[in-house]
Amino acid sequence: MQSEEMTRCIESCLACYKTCLSMAMNHCLKMGGKHVEAAHFKLMMACAEMCRTSAHFMLIGTPHHKHTCRECAEICTECAKDCERIGDMDECVTACRACAESCQKMAA
Amino acid sequence: MQSEEMTRCIESCLACYKTCLSMAMNHCLKMGGKHVEAAHFKLMMACAEMCRTSAHFMLIGTPHHKHTCRECAEICTECAKDCERIGDMDECVTACRACAESCQKMAA
Amino acid sequence: MQSEEMTRCIESCLACYKTCLSMAMNHCLKMGGKHVEAAHFKLMMACAEMCRTSAHFMLIGTPHHKHTCRECAEICTECAKDCERIGDMDECVTACRACAESCQKMAA
Amino acid sequence: MQSEEMTRCIESCLACYKTCLSMAMNHCLKMGGKHVEAAHFKLMMACAEMCRTSAHFMLIGTPHHKHTCRECAEICTECAKDCERIGDMDECVTACRACAESCQKMAA
Repeated sequence: MQSEEMTRCIESCLACYKTCLSMAMNHCLKMGGKHVEAAHFKLMMACAEMCRTSAHFMLIGTPHHKHTCRECAEICTECAKDCERIGDMDECVTACRACAESCQKMAA
Repeated sequence: MQSEEMTRCIESCLACYKTCLSMAMNHCLKMGGKHVEAAHFKLMMACAEMCRTSAHFMLIGTPHHKHTCRECAEICTECAKDCERIGDMDECVTACRACAESCQKMAA
Repeated sequence: MQSEEMTRCIESCLACYKTCLSMAMNHCLKMGGKHVEAAHFKLMMACAEMCRTSAHFMLIGTPHHKHTCRECAEICTECAKDCERIGDMDECVTACRACAESCQKMAA
Repeated sequence: MQSEEMTRCIESCLACYKTCLSMAMNHCLKMGGKHVEAAHFKLMMACAEMCRTSAHFMLIGTPHHKHTCRECAEICTECAKDCERIGDMDECVTACRACAESCQKMAA
């Protein structure tokens, strides 16, 4: 149904969605301080939503997935950088980088 | 397509979804303190998601909407109470109460 | 919290989401024939999802809403054209056009 | 963050979401006939959405996941049966059964 590359990208998107949502809700809210800065927290939530949507578009099998993948790569890259700045967010940095790389290929 | 009552319930669900998500992201994160307590914030996010899903089920037109409406009424009632406890969340209390009442009828 | 223009755009997105999802599920599936052509039906589902996500980004209050609004305008324009081609989809054409116009302004 | 059992249930929910959405969009629409019967197709879409939401609730880490998992188990069981009736949907039957079993445990 999907190319191998698309199957991998769906996995990367859902992995990043899981990590961003779960870390925001269970790590950031517990840590407090800079972890709940509005700009950081909103970016985490936007990243989770975009990854979820990007996976959804690839599962639908619509050619518009190229555009959602491009936007997903952009948000993930920004989220990875912001998680590095905040610190103590290694799992999220890794998931965002992997998803950005995978989405970049699909967007091309 | 839908009964008048269902059309109204879809509206209540989407209104509550908008209010919960928007207040969590733009009011609670700015206020900080008890507004970003994990239990309160998670409840706001769960309420937003359940309202969104409940509307989705009614739009699909599946008989399972009765079950999602029942759960939606329960979460909204809990969220209204918690927003009252936190204070300064009147808009959310009102939207949650209206949605709970509307969903209760659809679940019956 | 939001500008008036953004509040209107959130409304247009959710109105288009409701119309696309509900018509696909309750009109297209009943009519059959060209209404369930894969390309048309997928476009309806992608349009519903993009509108939902675009509203979500504006509710979060993230600057990335400009990108999701741009993509939303593009899909809605395409969906409006395809619904005209299929015929008997006036409600969807109107909702998609209104949403495309509103999102175009937010994307600028 | 999550128990092992919950981590497995999140995986089952997302696997079932992927299978239901992707098969509806890429298998059922292509096959046509009974595959696009309104009742069957709506059930597939409701199942995909419920699995997605159920995973979301577990990722948020809200105690309400018990209720969404209960409803998810119910829809998945019904979807598995309907996919057996339609035939040629083995992948979906398997994913729905696995998800129902996993959600049943979480709902207890």
